[in-house]
Amino acid sequence: MNLARVLHSIDRSFAEYVDDLTALVRAPSISTGAHDPQAAAAGIQQAAALLVAQLERGGLQARQIQLGPERNPLVLAELPAPDPARPTVLYYGHYDVQGVDNPLSAWSYDPFSGECRDGYVLGRGASDDKGQLLTHVVAWSAFLAAGGQPPVNPVFLLEGEEECGSAAVRQFLAAGELRRYAPFLAVVVSDSSMFGPDQPSLTIGLRGIVFTELAITGPRQDLHSGLAGGIVPNPNNLLVRALASLIDERGRVRLPGFYDEILPVRQTERGAYAALAVDEEAFRRDLGAPCLQREPGCTLLEQRWVRPTLDIHFLEGGSPRTVIPATCRAALSCRLVPAQNPEVILAALQRQLQQHLPPGYHMTFDQIHTCRPYYLAPDHPLVAPAMQALRTGFGVEPVVSREGGSIPIVLDLAAATQAPVLLLGFGQVTDNWHGPNERFAVRDFHRGIRTAAALVEQLAQYPPQRPAPASSSSERRRRAGSSG
Amino acid sequence: MNLARVLHSIDRSFAEYVDDLTALVRAPSISTGAHDPQAAAAGIQQAAALLVAQLERGGLQARQIQLGPERNPLVLAELPAPDPARPTVLYYGHYDVQGVDNPLSAWSYDPFSGECRDGYVLGRGASDDKGQLLTHVVAWSAFLAAGGQPPVNPVFLLEGEEECGSAAVRQFLAAGELRRYAPFLAVVVSDSSMFGPDQPSLTIGLRGIVFTELAITGPRQDLHSGLAGGIVPNPNNLLVRALASLIDERGRVRLPGFYDEILPVRQTERGAYAALAVDEEAFRRDLGAPCLQREPGCTLLEQRWVRPTLDIHFLEGGSPRTVIPATCRAALSCRLVPAQNPEVILAALQRQLQQHLPPGYHMTFDQIHTCRPYYLAPDHPLVAPAMQALRTGFGVEPVVSREGGSIPIVLDLAAATQAPVLLLGFGQVTDNWHGPNERFAVRDFHRGIRTAAALVEQLAQYPPQRPAPASSSSERRRRAGSSG
Repeated sequence: MNLARVLHSIDRSFAEYVDDLTALVRAPSISTGAHDPQAAAAGIQQAAALLVAQLERGGLQARQIQLGPERNPLVLAELPAPDPARPTVLYYGHYDVQGVDNPLSAWSYDPFSGECRDGYVLGRGASDDKGQLLTHVVAWSAFLAAGGQPPVNPVFLLEGEEECGSAAVRQFLAAGELRRYAPFLAVVVSDSSMFGPDQPSLTIGLRGIVFTELAITGPRQDLHSGLAGGIVPNPNNLLVRALASLIDERGRVRLPGFYDEILPVRQTERGAYAALAVDEEAFRRDLGAPCLQREPGCTLLEQRWVRPTLDIHFLEGGSPRTVIPATCRAALSCRLVPAQNPEVILAALQRQLQQHLPPGYHMTFDQIHTCRPYYLAPDHPLVAPAMQALRTGFGVEPVVSREGGSIPIVLDLAAATQAPVLLLGFGQVTDNWHGPNERFAVRDFHRGIRTAAALVEQLAQYPPQRPAPASSSSERRRRAGSSG
Repeated sequence: MNLARVLHSIDRSFAEYVDDLTALVRAPSISTGAHDPQAAAAGIQQAAALLVAQLERGGLQARQIQLGPERNPLVLAELPAPDPARPTVLYYGHYDVQGVDNPLSAWSYDPFSGECRDGYVLGRGASDDKGQLLTHVVAWSAFLAAGGQPPVNPVFLLEGEEECGSAAVRQFLAAGELRRYAPFLAVVVSDSSMFGPDQPSLTIGLRGIVFTELAITGPRQDLHSGLAGGIVPNPNNLLVRALASLIDERGRVRLPGFYDEILPVRQTERGAYAALAVDEEAFRRDLGAPCLQREPGCTLLEQRWVRPTLDIHFLEGGSPRTVIPATCRAALSCRLVPAQNPEVILAALQRQLQQHLPPGYHMTFDQIHTCRPYYLAPDHPLVAPAMQALRTGFGVEPVVSREGGSIPIVLDLAAATQAPVLLLGFGQVTDNWHGPNERFAVRDFHRGIRTAAALVEQLAQYPPQRPAPASSSSERRRRAGSSG
């Protein structure tokens, strides 16, 4: 393979790739928080069909997998004739997007027009995750078009439910559907942010999460606070007391044992993070935050990457007149770091919140999801080739970093493949994920594609071919037989 | 005057009075929380016009007073030829009602159909306050129709903004418009509840109130909690901490000095309240509350009547996904008892809430209204005649009671008239004021009218005529001159 030729072809055809991305952004593939569920369902179908077409055009065999009427389709793609002697690299991404009513009036452009203006592809999903997943699709297209001999067998697994719990892909993994592609060299996921506008990074850590909605039900109906105030426990008051019991005045989480399982961060890693230049004022301004906070002894980066959180996302109860509401609701999450256990913390949360209820009042929990934190040691043998790919793609020295967010499926993919996950984020923290005015820099899209192509070459060199373990090789034989 | 004849005529014509009330309920005179402001504005006009017609039909001179385009009309009525030698009794009531979206689907009947079924007039405003204010209109109609010589000069002042701050009537009072009717013997207000279904009562105390909405503004827009969690202070977290700082785990209010100004309740009054039979379990069931609470050493009645509260009526912030919201809101109130000062408590509330904000975060307060508590000593000379009227109207022994609610205008009326306010509540605590399924018992409407008629007779006997003070009598002469 001649990487220079592949990169040259990428540069030459880049305008087409931007068109591919804008076409994908125009599909309103909302999987959560859609005001028009029918339009969102059609958007899901449209995005999945587009991806299949783009993958096929790139020389891969692609198909939709529909795992039941309630599920959004998975898109699965592989080489027409994979070499059973080579390991698999699994590429994961998601084509579904968050809703846009946050509020819609706060958007300064149509979230689904797929406009490309002033160096940005504008719209919901441009960065999270359509633009990022497309870098690898495009890189493999360019690699195959250049007549390169695949050093690994790429398998694309693209889902439409990342923003709402990844049910289909979890079902797919739980059914063991990936086993026939074993052994896996790596999983590649581009669904995160690089360290800075011109600072590419390999993300070696993700925070985990425990998320829950909760509701308190009290009186049968709203009551007049003149008649009932003081004698009927007020669900809003109870909710506020219960939630406030979870955090202290400095923002620390007040749950028994919450901080006990946190692993100390290696001194070398802390040193690497300390060396990263952070213009805190610019960062604050870009976020639009009035101020930033951190725990004593923490840098801003450490606070975001290696410290846990508790955020109340949602509050809803009563009405702005003198009522005692019948019910009220909230949603909250904790971001978790190695080695906090989300199940243990969920149980502690529920136990502590419920302590605030008087007799006959009920608290229910709903929409629970949990995810462990992810961590790849910086001395893992695949870190160096991934860094080299970034170096080639961006033309600058990359760094290792972590990410404050969670990608629940990463943990499932790691478990299903028994392989390390390379998190190559091409987004920016200012891309406005989940909020109004999401966007993706055309330049980042370009450099991401180049990085993805360079990664293919790196994987050709590393590691030296190794024989598949016995159980996996028998799996592989079955697959070769059925497809041959 | 022959009371028996008046009562007989009331009984005979009662069906017509029910028709008057159902006609009034059918006017959707919402002054706050209307989903269809145009229909509500039309309902206000319709209710005011109906009242003028009903007052005129009863032999009084009535008119609407429009104090500006934003204001709902006042309805003012008096005798065609008042006797300047007699004192005035001011009757106050309100024809506006609360909204019905609480939610509308929770109503089991149309809130504005004015249906009369199973012994109840059904609908928003039936009890609060259309049915109650009408008792006095009807009683004076019956009194005048019977050819009685008025022992006092009745003046009706009925407003259309009680549920949203009473702006017009406050403006009317501030302009000194009531002065020409001085001196006042009493103010009569029926806008509260009687002690129990068959237990009429004179309300000698009302809780005051301090109400405010508040909003916290933080980041410019909603942020992804993975990117910003832990480093950007979360407005929802701040709100919850700030609000929770106002109440302890037993529900007591944690504001400096909050309990310091509370006057002890006289032992005789506590004894009277302790003697009142309260079926707590039935009361709880009627309210639809899972349980009831009280402070140590308090009876349930004392908790509701002579103890202050803090209720969070409204919470709103973010959305049920992993965001840090840009802003969040709440509404809360304290019910106050003698001699707590709402202005002092408002300032303490604001000060304490604002302490929870980090730099650059703002908290704004809106929709503030305050009202002092009201108290009429049980040995005041007008208490006995009011009790006698209740005795006659209901045929059972009445009691003195207090009310947990607030009627802000009562304090203004007391100040403007320099007269005691007689609070004769004919509603029931189970009439569902402000919530879905408001209703007014036909029987209570009937007994209320009889009480109102008996009160006219009582006022004829008490107190002995007294000369008007100098300033007031010159006012009175001017009025006589201009109207004559």
